[in-house]
Amino acid sequence: MNIDYQEILDEIYQEIKPFKGEGEVADYISELANIDPDKYGISLHCFDDQEYALGDSREKFSIQSISKVLTLSLAVSQMGDRIWDRVDVEPSGDPFNSLVQLEYERGIPRNPLINAGAIVVADVLISILDNPKDDLLRFVRSICGNDGIDFNPKVADSEKATGYRNAALAHMLRSFDNIKNDVDTVLDFYFHQCSLEMTCQELSRTFLLFANHGASYESGEQLLSKRLTKRINAIMQTCGFYDEAGEFSFRVGLPGKSGVGGGIVAIYPQQYSVAVWSPRLNPKGNSVLGMKSLELLTTKTGLSIF
Amino acid sequence: MNIDYQEILDEIYQEIKPFKGEGEVADYISELANIDPDKYGISLHCFDDQEYALGDSREKFSIQSISKVLTLSLAVSQMGDRIWDRVDVEPSGDPFNSLVQLEYERGIPRNPLINAGAIVVADVLISILDNPKDDLLRFVRSICGNDGIDFNPKVADSEKATGYRNAALAHMLRSFDNIKNDVDTVLDFYFHQCSLEMTCQELSRTFLLFANHGASYESGEQLLSKRLTKRINAIMQTCGFYDEAGEFSFRVGLPGKSGVGGGIVAIYPQQYSVAVWSPRLNPKGNSVLGMKSLELLTTKTGLSIF
Amino acid sequence: MNIDYQEILDEIYQEIKPFKGEGEVADYISELANIDPDKYGISLHCFDDQEYALGDSREKFSIQSISKVLTLSLAVSQMGDRIWDRVDVEPSGDPFNSLVQLEYERGIPRNPLINAGAIVVADVLISILDNPKDDLLRFVRSICGNDGIDFNPKVADSEKATGYRNAALAHMLRSFDNIKNDVDTVLDFYFHQCSLEMTCQELSRTFLLFANHGASYESGEQLLSKRLTKRINAIMQTCGFYDEAGEFSFRVGLPGKSGVGGGIVAIYPQQYSVAVWSPRLNPKGNSVLGMKSLELLTTKTGLSIF
Amino acid sequence: MNIDYQEILDEIYQEIKPFKGEGEVADYISELANIDPDKYGISLHCFDDQEYALGDSREKFSIQSISKVLTLSLAVSQMGDRIWDRVDVEPSGDPFNSLVQLEYERGIPRNPLINAGAIVVADVLISILDNPKDDLLRFVRSICGNDGIDFNPKVADSEKATGYRNAALAHMLRSFDNIKNDVDTVLDFYFHQCSLEMTCQELSRTFLLFANHGASYESGEQLLSKRLTKRINAIMQTCGFYDEAGEFSFRVGLPGKSGVGGGIVAIYPQQYSVAVWSPRLNPKGNSVLGMKSLELLTTKTGLSIF
Repeated sequence: MNIDYQEILDEIYQEIKPFKGEGEVADYISELANIDPDKYGISLHCFDDQEYALGDSREKFSIQSISKVLTLSLAVSQMGDRIWDRVDVEPSGDPFNSLVQLEYERGIPRNPLINAGAIVVADVLISILDNPKDDLLRFVRSICGNDGIDFNPKVADSEKATGYRNAALAHMLRSFDNIKNDVDTVLDFYFHQCSLEMTCQELSRTFLLFANHGASYESGEQLLSKRLTKRINAIMQTCGFYDEAGEFSFRVGLPGKSGVGGGIVAIYPQQYSVAVWSPRLNPKGNSVLGMKSLELLTTKTGLSIF
Repeated sequence: MNIDYQEILDEIYQEIKPFKGEGEVADYISELANIDPDKYGISLHCFDDQEYALGDSREKFSIQSISKVLTLSLAVSQMGDRIWDRVDVEPSGDPFNSLVQLEYERGIPRNPLINAGAIVVADVLISILDNPKDDLLRFVRSICGNDGIDFNPKVADSEKATGYRNAALAHMLRSFDNIKNDVDTVLDFYFHQCSLEMTCQELSRTFLLFANHGASYESGEQLLSKRLTKRINAIMQTCGFYDEAGEFSFRVGLPGKSGVGGGIVAIYPQQYSVAVWSPRLNPKGNSVLGMKSLELLTTKTGLSIF
Repeated sequence: MNIDYQEILDEIYQEIKPFKGEGEVADYISELANIDPDKYGISLHCFDDQEYALGDSREKFSIQSISKVLTLSLAVSQMGDRIWDRVDVEPSGDPFNSLVQLEYERGIPRNPLINAGAIVVADVLISILDNPKDDLLRFVRSICGNDGIDFNPKVADSEKATGYRNAALAHMLRSFDNIKNDVDTVLDFYFHQCSLEMTCQELSRTFLLFANHGASYESGEQLLSKRLTKRINAIMQTCGFYDEAGEFSFRVGLPGKSGVGGGIVAIYPQQYSVAVWSPRLNPKGNSVLGMKSLELLTTKTGLSIF
Repeated sequence: MNIDYQEILDEIYQEIKPFKGEGEVADYISELANIDPDKYGISLHCFDDQEYALGDSREKFSIQSISKVLTLSLAVSQMGDRIWDRVDVEPSGDPFNSLVQLEYERGIPRNPLINAGAIVVADVLISILDNPKDDLLRFVRSICGNDGIDFNPKVADSEKATGYRNAALAHMLRSFDNIKNDVDTVLDFYFHQCSLEMTCQELSRTFLLFANHGASYESGEQLLSKRLTKRINAIMQTCGFYDEAGEFSFRVGLPGKSGVGGGIVAIYPQQYSVAVWSPRLNPKGNSVLGMKSLELLTTKTGLSIF
């Protein structure tokens, strides 16, 4: 294939302009409410060794739920398939923070990309890592090849201050014995992972791992087995977009993950990894311009899986 | 009416004997698991100024959920009907600790005698009292006319150590803004109220208040208005027995409240207040011998409301 | 006691006047929507052999869900306690037509006064009666001592035409094997029982049975055992008012049952049976003036059970 | 690509042998319970104009839920995107016949491949087609290029006789006004579509349509727009396997659909369509050997989308 990605990104940028004012910035985390709602950046790392980018692609933003893919990867790299005893791999079909399903399923979250599932993954990491927060940073930095990636403590504090739903989830998981460590320690880790800040460039570079069958794009080192990478990609495909997994699957057709900070990352195996950021969200919690950009990308490149 | 209550209690004691080994002591609170399962006491305070008693009626036990009637009374005595904005008065039709209904009803517990409702009442008391725990003790002691009533700190600690479900409820209520104070402070108060220890004698004496239209039986002082006493009695009638409200209403037919410590208290307005204690519980969490004793009592006295 | 009931009814009539325009007539059954919304009747049958009445107390209306107490009584008179294997006796805590709880409880309705429970009772009657509809009429006529009681076929047809929720309930009960007969036959019987028409006078006369421990007030014949009458009264007390059982228990404090036709009937054991009718309903489906009338009645007579 | 599909099918056949006795034939539809549980057939239609097949690939079986993709296609070909007003496109996260979600979502099924959704699609077809059952047959026959495809009336009757859950769903949808036609007519159509019988060869030939962007593989005629074909493929990808969508997405990674008759069909856009049949099902209702065969196929061909 011979695709001029830069030209395509330029076209996308023109075509999304009319939708710039649509949607609302997430305001339940006070630190996020202060972001300039009109930011927009996109970065695409291609297997031809090139990065194509545009807009605010070098600006840090809060990756929020996108971090769930990273903690899952770290957990899976350490304990393999045993993790599926504690969290399932099926789409949830419910708003992302519902407690109902968790009670119905006796404390086993539907998948690791809803909050309850990510909290279980956080608990797993606390059990197996010596310095969980540092070790997570080290893991993400090494995948990305960038030592500047860090938590934003203000955002972590801000999440804690309003994170009652997540605290309820964590205590409920504990009551079902699917949290093994101190609940506050687990939540502290979880709120920190959500506060991770990255640029579009860093994010798309990091997710090349999932487009490359689990091997580091730079060193070639196999950080995740091919099989478990496929598993994580399948989970992103079916569970990565809150209650819009089906819609995203149709419109974009790639495995990916969004966050309420306005970021979305997606991969096309053996072709590229792409990250886009725009803070205004649709009612289901996904970035309006991010969704549109990725839809245009797969339409223009013809690289949809369907 | 001319009823020989002592003779009736003696008869009851003979008739329940065959059922003595039935049921299991609650073991999820470790401090309660150590109780001698074969304890049995009953105390009936009559409006003829007599107490009739039998067995271990002078032994302290953990009143647990029975305390919910006392905290509700204290809250209602302070703020009247405004409390119904924060907690409803309808039976729940669900196991006592279910989170599902709470989510469905957007954070308004069905009634003040389920855990979620009692936690809201605890929050209310923390908001309006200077020294919530001390003030609760003072209130209960004054109704009972007995300064020896106290919390059992070991039991309170024991509840805290395993109270993840209640912590989940409290955080969820907080997320719906139906808890106004610090969640840990609310839970600490709640776990303390559950740890209140009383004897059957003290408990039946205390509940004379509800049989006496809200007036202190001794001083005649109106501690609760007649109207609000009727409200509390109606709530006990329809919501006092977890998922056996209908069964208790049929078998006993009196307003009452049970606790997992094995206590049950019930009242017949203008006639008597009765407390019974026996630690073995049926599968729905109510004392086996307690239920049987009260059923026999209303059958033998003919004082059923139906 | 020496109570002038007629005077009390007159007072009630004056005091409810200001609330006459409140509430809405049920309109989902087209035949009911045509009723004059300002009708009001009340009839009280006392154990001193008197009837006290007022307003439209001799006018027929659709008793609707009140019929559930009558079919339950007929079923219980035939098969006794075995019926509780097929329907529970606990309050439902949910809107009266919810399917959720039924699925959660694997096809056993919470109680016989919600639609699902009454449909199971209808199925039971079809299994044990030779001519179910005729036999039901004969049973009700004999209790009331009045051969003029009948179904309204237009209302029955009208219910059928919009009874999709009830049809869904019936098929679901069938899928759990808790309906044994042809679903359409069961629904036809159910829609007919709901269409029963009675006057306030007839209704209060009929319910004397429940105030009289199951014995016919006229002949003294024991139609229902004392024990099963107590059971039915307890069920009315805790489950008789859709999602206002707790509210009614507080405000009125008597066992009773309401219907969307605007009728309410209640009993005070060994004292009286009372029926009131006024078509305008509150948002929970109970007659506005009916609720107020009964509240005033127990307040004025002092005959509340609490 | 130069893949020897026949060799791969032979290998698959050898490798699945050890699992032949696993799973159980669906027995809730009596007609299906009589099938020889050890049947196994597979047929793969490739874009190189070849069919590769093995085992009982020419034997008719009941396609059951696979028919939902065909009725959806027919509906979408007639009314386009307007159908999404009546049925959503998101995974359900619940067992395929749950009524709970339907009530929670006010009568809008989560997607067209769960029973509730397919019943709505059936209702849509009844509204827009002159002879719904004949027109459906004509549509399927024309896609497949085979006039021998037909319903099995015995199976349709058998489904009707035990289809109480589906009848409950249909009546509930009607109560939410999301069924417009007579409920029995809708169910009759639905039970007939489920009774469609096809061979693996016919099924894989038919589904070439979805691998070919909606154009007939033979005539090139565009039967479905490219865009709506992508939509249907995305729905198969996220919703095609009851509560194993995530598992199938990982293990196979293709859009597809299974039925309780033991059939599974899947497509790889622009490469192939494959149908496999083996009646023994795993506990989630998907064919044991069918799942294993497709997993081996994508592993051996390297044609996984992840």
